[in-house]
Parts: sequence; C-alpha cells; structure tokens
Amino acid sequence: MQDKEYFSNDDGLNLQTRKEYFNEILNLESGRILSDFWLEYETYGHFNGDNAIVICHALSGNCHAAGRYEGERKKGWWDDVIGANKAIDTNKYFVICVSILGANGGILGGSTNALSVEASTGREYRLRFPVLAISDVVRAQMRLFERLGIKKARAIIGGSLGGMQALCFGIEQSHFCDNIMILASTYATQPWAIAFNKIATEAIVRDSAFMGGYYDKEHIKENGLNGLSIGRMAGHISFLSPHSMAKKFGRNYSGTDGLYELFGRYEIERYMQYNGDNFARKYDPLCYLYVVKMMNNFDSTRHYNSLKNALLLSKARFYLLAFSGDLLFMPDEMEQISQALSELGREHFYSCEHSDYGHDSFLVENDITTKHIKRFLNENSK
Amino acid sequence: MQDKEYFSNDDGLNLQTRKEYFNEILNLESGRILSDFWLEYETYGHFNGDNAIVICHALSGNCHAAGRYEGERKKGWWDDVIGANKAIDTNKYFVICVSILGANGGILGGSTNALSVEASTGREYRLRFPVLAISDVVRAQMRLFERLGIKKARAIIGGSLGGMQALCFGIEQSHFCDNIMILASTYATQPWAIAFNKIATEAIVRDSAFMGGYYDKEHIKENGLNGLSIGRMAGHISFLSPHSMAKKFGRNYSGTDGLYELFGRYEIERYMQYNGDNFARKYDPLCYLYVVKMMNNFDSTRHYNSLKNALLLSKARFYLLAFSGDLLFMPDEMEQISQALSELGREHFYSCEHSDYGHDSFLVENDITTKHIKRFLNENSK
Repeated sequence: MQDKEYFSNDDGLNLQTRKEYFNEILNLESGRILSDFWLEYETYGHFNGDNAIVICHALSGNCHAAGRYEGERKKGWWDDVIGANKAIDTNKYFVICVSILGANGGILGGSTNALSVEASTGREYRLRFPVLAISDVVRAQMRLFERLGIKKARAIIGGSLGGMQALCFGIEQSHFCDNIMILASTYATQPWAIAFNKIATEAIVRDSAFMGGYYDKEHIKENGLNGLSIGRMAGHISFLSPHSMAKKFGRNYSGTDGLYELFGRYEIERYMQYNGDNFARKYDPLCYLYVVKMMNNFDSTRHYNSLKNALLLSKARFYLLAFSGDLLFMPDEMEQISQALSELGREHFYSCEHSDYGHDSFLVENDITTKHIKRFLNENSK
Repeated sequence: MQDKEYFSNDDGLNLQTRKEYFNEILNLESGRILSDFWLEYETYGHFNGDNAIVICHALSGNCHAAGRYEGERKKGWWDDVIGANKAIDTNKYFVICVSILGANGGILGGSTNALSVEASTGREYRLRFPVLAISDVVRAQMRLFERLGIKKARAIIGGSLGGMQALCFGIEQSHFCDNIMILASTYATQPWAIAFNKIATEAIVRDSAFMGGYYDKEHIKENGLNGLSIGRMAGHISFLSPHSMAKKFGRNYSGTDGLYELFGRYEIERYMQYNGDNFARKYDPLCYLYVVKMMNNFDSTRHYNSLKNALLLSKARFYLLAFSGDLLFMPDEMEQISQALSELGREHFYSCEHSDYGHDSFLVENDITTKHIKRFLNENSK
C-alpha cells in the first residue's frame, strides 16, 4: 500500500480519493500488454463487506463523482445523486468510482494514460500508449475491487460511456454484480456518435500545437489546445438538442457584439466557445483521443455475433433508462438491449423518459434519475 | 456589356455562364455600402419575356446548377431537376441561378466577395468586406434581373440557404414573383444550425494557416485549409441523419486500418475526411465565414416583429416542402411558415415528406422533389 496517495475532506460523505499501483501486467483486448498500471478512484460512505455500488463515469468525468474538495468551486459530477439521504445513499452504501484507464483522470493525475511514464523506457508513453477497450477498463477495475475486498457489488450504475462499462461488467464479469443500471448509452457506438468524435480527432491532430502528440504538457495545460476546444464544441452540440438550445439561447445575440460584425456572436456561440476553451484547459488532448477511440470501438456484440448471444453471458437484471431527446445515443439503441433481453425471457426494466435536454438529460434531469435510481435500488434490496 | 464574360457548352440545355459588372452602389442592410459589384450567373433554356424561373443556391453550391462543362466530371448541383423534359423543363422555361454575393462562386470566380479587389483601395477586401444579409443578396439579384429584362419571374425555387433567399424574395420583392417554392429551409436560423456553423468559424479562425484572413490564396487553394475541412466535416453531420449514416456506413471499419490503431478509421470517418478535405480545396475559407454569417443572421421576422407581419408583405403563393429527417432545418420550422400563412388566410401548400436522408434530402430525394416541383409549376401555369 506504499504507493497509495490520499485526499479527503470529511464532511460526512467520507470522500476519499486514492491511487493504487498495480505492479502486474494487464493483457489488453488489442494484444498489447500494460506492464503495470495505476488506478485512481474515489469512495464515499463506509464499506461493510456487502454494500458496494460501482459508479462508472462518462467522457467528461473522472472518479470525482460527489462532494467538494477544499477550495474547489464545483462539486463532483453526480453530486445531485450521490450522498447522505440522496438517491444513492452513502449512509447505506459504499460507493466507488474509478477514473477510466487511459482517460485524463482527476485530482491525483488519473489512472495510467498516454502521459504516464512507461516502466520499460522511463519515458512518457505518448503515441506508444496502447488503444484500450472498455473491456480493458472494466478488467482493470476488477483488479482494484479484488484488492479492496469487494467480491461482489450490490449495483453498477453508469451513463453514456459509463453505461458501456456497466453493460460490459454485465456481460464479461457476470459473477460480480446482479443489478446493473444503464442510462443514455448504447450496446454499440453508432456512426452518428463516431462522426461527432471525428471532429475532435481531426481538430486535435491537425492543430500544429499538438506537434504529433509530443506537445509541451505544461504549455497545453495552461493555454488549452485549440483543436480540443473545437472538438469539445462539437461535443456540446451532441450533448444538447435543437429544443434545449432554442429554449436556452434562442436567437439571442451577445449584447456587446454587432449583428454585422463578422466575429459578432450569438449566445449559443459564446456558450460553445466558453465551454470548449474551458474544457481544453482541463483535459489532455492525447487522453481525449484515446478515450474517444475507446468509445468508438465499443461494440458489446463484437465477439458474440449478436447482442442476444452477448447477453446470454449475463445473469444480471438490467435497468435501462433512455431519454427521448437524446441525440447522441438514441433511445432505440437502448430499446434494442431491452428487446434482446425480452427475447431471452430475461426480467428487466426499460423506460424512455421524455426530456428535451438531449444527451445531457442523464446528468441534468435529476428528478427523473433520482426516481429511477431509488426504484432500481429498492427493487434490488427486496 | 463590355464587362461581361461568357462560358458555354451547347448540349441542348443552352447553358451559359456569365458575369455582369454593376458600376453602381449597393446599400447594404448593415449600413455599409458596396461601391460596385460583379454578379456571376448561369442560365438554361431561352428567354421569351415571360418564362423565367429563378433558382437560389445553397451553402455548398454556386450558379452552376445544371449541365456539365467540357472536361468536368460532375454536373451542376441540381442537374437531376433542371433540363429538357425534367421537372424544371428548359424547353419551356428560362432558368437562371446567380452566385450568392459574398460566396465562393463558380467557374468565373463568383460574384463579388471578400477576395475581390475593392475599387477604392485597389486591394482585396479580405476582412474589410462587409457582412452581407440575405436581403442584400436578393436585392443584388434584382439589379441583374432588371438589366436582363426579367420584369417578373414565373417562379422562384430554393432549398436550405436558397430557401431563405426565396422567402426573402417573397417578403421584400413581392411584386417580382407570385409563386415561391421553399425546400428544407427556415424562416429564421435556429441555434442548432448556428452551433454547427460555429465549429467551422472557430476551426477556420484558429487555424494558424488562416493568418487572420490574410493567407496566401493560391497556397490555400492548393492545399485546403484544415480549419475549413474540419468545419465541413461538422457540416456533413448536419446534412445527414443518424439513420442515413447507420444505413450507409454502419460500424464498417476501413479495411486496411487496424481496430486498435489510434488513427484507424471507421468508414464514416473516411467519408467525412474525404469530403471535408475535398471541399476545403474548392471553397475559400473567408468566403465560407461570410456565407455562414449570412445564414446565421437570417431572420425574416427581424424587421417585422413577427412572421405573420413579415408575410403580410408577400402576395406570393408559397409551396413549402419539408423532410421528416431533416436535422438542420427541422420540419417544424417550415410548418411555422405554413401556420402563419394559414392564420393570414393565405392559400399555400405545405408537406413534410418522409425521408431518412436528413437535410440532404432536398438534393438526393429526386423522386419526391421532382413530383412536387412538377405539381408546383403545373398549378401555377393553370
């Protein structure tokens, strides 16, 4: 345990952020091998041996799912849902969220990624870092759970890219959890989502400041890479919906800009620029490329010929929650999971809730998600 | 007429491409003034004084709507619809299409745009070029029609950005045409479309090769600006739909690329890259910025408080054609025009045709558009 780092501010949530070192190989789906790896993770509540809930984070997130660090303005990305007396009640459950292997990660520098030092060379991986699959991410997490003594989780919950992990847990680690909740996700990433990711990939790679992946880390951290900012702006389109944009921004024009100035901006443009630039200062562009590739490559059916065959491996009861206005992972992609389960005669729950917030619904429609998470956890504890 | 240029290959279509110089000012909506301007245009068929049909082109197009130039591989962008015995029959009608003022234009270098030489300075406008409005584009075209002796058009037809011009003709030049057909367009550009354009704007402006608008024209023409290519890739998302992408590309992977290569590509990615790069070699990035701004600024209600008030000015019979899967200009935007006309008690036609091809439907669903254009023109000739 000597390699473990620690961060906490105790406000009743018992938030702990740690990093665990695994001096052992991880065989990857690609055939490549990680000689060793770190996993960064966060926990809330207290472990009693049988009350662990695994939260899987999405593209923009990391292990910091709830609570607030000292001096930080923002709380964890799902603080509305995780905490004492909240939908995922930390008085009752021990909640754990692991930073995705290969992703940018959180306050402790994240899990092993392309900017980590490769043991064999003593240098940063950069473009030598292997392409990781959701399967790899999930198997790495299993190592951590084993080390922490979590033999079985009470529930696994994930939205979007987190939903892919949750589904993968169900199929490939079926002994680990009987109750899996997937929000706003898919069984296989469709070309529409790949297309949005493509904007980011091209904008990053073609940015001269990216320097073929060998950019100055500190410089990029300070200034943000334009290419990532542009890619993120495209992402924000896919997170919203025509309806939510119209409602939030309409045709409002930035007050100080002129309508006939070439670079005068509509409010939606300001929003995109602000969020794109902001994100680019927080997220590493190379990590973004690897996570996006992981998302694009996700196809739970790849090794099983069909979704039904894949789900045959799973023993879990799935709780599937889609949102009508989701334009990144369409409700019908979730419905196909439900349909396959029905054809297998598997008890499960599927609902497509009405929402105009687009893909972001799973993060902003807190009344809806709270209701469903409570129902999901209640049914499981019966 | 000394300043007129001429290009033609006579294959029965009587295709003529010309450029007309206007040594007169054009007062712009912005308050800025163009001291003089060129208009590039193309005609098909023969003018008999009362058989002119005006075609308004969209963002990617120019005046070359039909026919094939000698040595060119591709025909004009609406060749499926315009020609002898086609929906817009050039045996019967004299068809004219003008390159949008400010846009990139066609084979004769286009109408006056940001790369034109400003008379007062003898230098290219570049960023000193004024932001143009759809109104300006339409008023410039009226000057041309006047010079050519076209007092009244039998019909005006436009899709997308062309539909905005058509609507603008109806409202602001109501004496000029009684029959206006609008396809896959809107009465006011919504934030969703502005957001897609934003990707292009930011990607162009942040590209170091753009050099603040003072790039080497010839170099850019040869290599294409990465920023425009990326912006165009985003455009292609908005032209398609999740359904059409799934049907056309699915999760197919480029045969020679490896699934676990970071830069291995899905077919949808190859498609975007190919089309983006191709477009960037054909279209000038500064012109793109100006056209996109023109599109973003389009709001037919701006000076009239409401769409109904705006349409009060029009005497035309509108024929409105939307496509169900259009994710750039949603059918309900077209429906709002129909609704306003209904409330005014104005006879008109509105239909939303089922199509999975997204915004591109108006260019690729030839059976549907042919049927409707024929009906539109037949009803008018009664």
